[in-house]
Amino acid sequence: MTAPNETPLDSTLAAIAALGPLDVAAMATASSHLDRLTKPPGSLGRLEGLVVTLAGITGDPRVSMARRAIVVAAADHGVARRGVSAYPSDVTAQMVVNFIDGGAAINALAGGVGASLTVVDVGVAGPIPDVARGPRGGRLVSARIRTGTADMTEGPAMTRMEAIAAVGVGLWVVDELRSAGLDLVGIGDMGIGNTTAASAIVAVLTGSAPDGVTGRGTGIDDAGRAHKVAVIERAIATNAPDPADRIGVLAAIGGLEIGALTGVILGAVAARVPVVLDGFITGAAALLAAGLSPVVAQRVIAAHRSVEPGHAVVMERLGLQPLLDLDLRLGEGTGAALAMQLIDAAVRVRDEMATFDSAAVSEPVGTVEPPRPRP
Amino acid sequence: MTAPNETPLDSTLAAIAALGPLDVAAMATASSHLDRLTKPPGSLGRLEGLVVTLAGITGDPRVSMARRAIVVAAADHGVARRGVSAYPSDVTAQMVVNFIDGGAAINALAGGVGASLTVVDVGVAGPIPDVARGPRGGRLVSARIRTGTADMTEGPAMTRMEAIAAVGVGLWVVDELRSAGLDLVGIGDMGIGNTTAASAIVAVLTGSAPDGVTGRGTGIDDAGRAHKVAVIERAIATNAPDPADRIGVLAAIGGLEIGALTGVILGAVAARVPVVLDGFITGAAALLAAGLSPVVAQRVIAAHRSVEPGHAVVMERLGLQPLLDLDLRLGEGTGAALAMQLIDAAVRVRDEMATFDSAAVSEPVGTVEPPRPRP
Repeated sequence: MTAPNETPLDSTLAAIAALGPLDVAAMATASSHLDRLTKPPGSLGRLEGLVVTLAGITGDPRVSMARRAIVVAAADHGVARRGVSAYPSDVTAQMVVNFIDGGAAINALAGGVGASLTVVDVGVAGPIPDVARGPRGGRLVSARIRTGTADMTEGPAMTRMEAIAAVGVGLWVVDELRSAGLDLVGIGDMGIGNTTAASAIVAVLTGSAPDGVTGRGTGIDDAGRAHKVAVIERAIATNAPDPADRIGVLAAIGGLEIGALTGVILGAVAARVPVVLDGFITGAAALLAAGLSPVVAQRVIAAHRSVEPGHAVVMERLGLQPLLDLDLRLGEGTGAALAMQLIDAAVRVRDEMATFDSAAVSEPVGTVEPPRPRP
Repeated sequence: MTAPNETPLDSTLAAIAALGPLDVAAMATASSHLDRLTKPPGSLGRLEGLVVTLAGITGDPRVSMARRAIVVAAADHGVARRGVSAYPSDVTAQMVVNFIDGGAAINALAGGVGASLTVVDVGVAGPIPDVARGPRGGRLVSARIRTGTADMTEGPAMTRMEAIAAVGVGLWVVDELRSAGLDLVGIGDMGIGNTTAASAIVAVLTGSAPDGVTGRGTGIDDAGRAHKVAVIERAIATNAPDPADRIGVLAAIGGLEIGALTGVILGAVAARVPVVLDGFITGAAALLAAGLSPVVAQRVIAAHRSVEPGHAVVMERLGLQPLLDLDLRLGEGTGAALAMQLIDAAVRVRDEMATFDSAAVSEPVGTVEPPRPRP
């Protein structure tokens, strides 16, 4: 039942609140299955943790992870005019074309794990030329709320309604993917200037000094980073967002793609579809989503530890431990796609291994200490 | 030319000595190719490092990694009678059967990366029943040097000739795999008691106290670990191996599967085939191989950081940084198979991405700091 004035965000948050905790019965079933397989208990470490986590999120200890999608949300940032990035804003639209054509890193990596790629233009500034979708190319969803955000150093990046609309785009994309069948979703971002917005969000939501959560983005030097910190400080001073009001923070100092990714996270969590975060930008979106609904943090999977310093702050706040640490700082969902490789491996272990009984392998003698796997 | 009394080990070491350093021209070609792809320079971190490393080892900046094998060497340890493991020695033979049947973790994970599985019985103690090879099962190579090592607390684990023969088995397996076509090899181990031998080797070769390089293996408790340390100390005291004599160390306190793995590493390095180490046991083998020929360390890929404390000591000594850190402690080559997923991803990035020119994406403005990827 949707009340007359209820937004899709409201009903999604209500659905998440109704979920309750992780399914401990499914997790126990998954754990005891793992302990019957022909290996010392817990010896596959975080792969075993993944099996248990997937059971807890979905409620199914043998859930399939076959139908997977990567969603990349793209948008531009008015603050990019302040010289916070090594790349011009034009690159956002150019990379969207590259995603459709199939030449970006995420095309290669999504292809490697058999994930479909959906590229959501939620607020790119320039026109997206009409380009044929390449054999490895992604599908474009045009859902532009506005042509990039306003410069957040001079006022709010967007209005509150635009922020809610951006989140709504993400919710809608999940619904649409689910109607075609969706077992697993990974998320990624594209938007020149978006580490500036993400650092601002993380600073405000965690009470950190901007200097501690601001990095080099695509590769600026020390002077560029110092300038970026000053820009973030000015944006926060100009807007003075209330940390308790997540939508207000998103509107003031956020980004349209960050809003859409927040929506994808919330939509997937509500539908009990495991969602794989990527790096820093998706981490900022997860922080917003977890602010709107605290159970979100235990229902998402952190793919990798980004080199952006703010990412570690987000992971600590959410209580998440990334699976990979590969010095990635690209975005696009590339880390999420790599984590799907590990999810594949975990599911294979779960589904293909023999048990001690079936293989007639002797069980341990004496005391065995099975260290509980990290989640 | 093989001299009349030259062993395969001697000629392999001569071949490695003739290799010279990594191919810096191929590495530079690979690096500059990566920097033309549509991503900020270095932003794919260690995936980019892998592309460069593969070029350096093979001499080919676009080398294929299609034909891959996992070699699991299996053997028993006389010292297992001292109660150093949570599992009975019978499990070694039982697990070999499981590998052939296809029910072990490595079957699932090797299958996931399209690697063939070769199981080498280089010294299992009990009989291997005649079992049909399962659809996901590995191929058994019977090359038993002896039925398990002797108890190293009472004297040498094996003779010097047996140690050289074990290494020779590994060299032979590489030759045989290469004759069928081999682009990439991962290695793993099976042998109840073999963390005891590996800890002893690492203690002697690195000059570490046994207590600092001895862990819980398959899952013994604190008292079990303390006993294991005492057993290792006694084995070292009994044999007093000379650290400079690697074959002597292998014979005194090693294992037959560790010898065979040393041979696989040396054979692959000599043939410029990238070899992916697994965890602690294969690390001990790499330490022996690098002791026999120092260039080995820069021509192997470390898959993952084992929870065994001695593994970190090995990695530091060899100057290697594992790709993954997933709390694995199983062996069997499981970590090596997981690392092959990352090698796949790296090769896809290298081969499938568009360049800035071909995709008409703008290059950076101003200063870009491309942090050099970790190797």
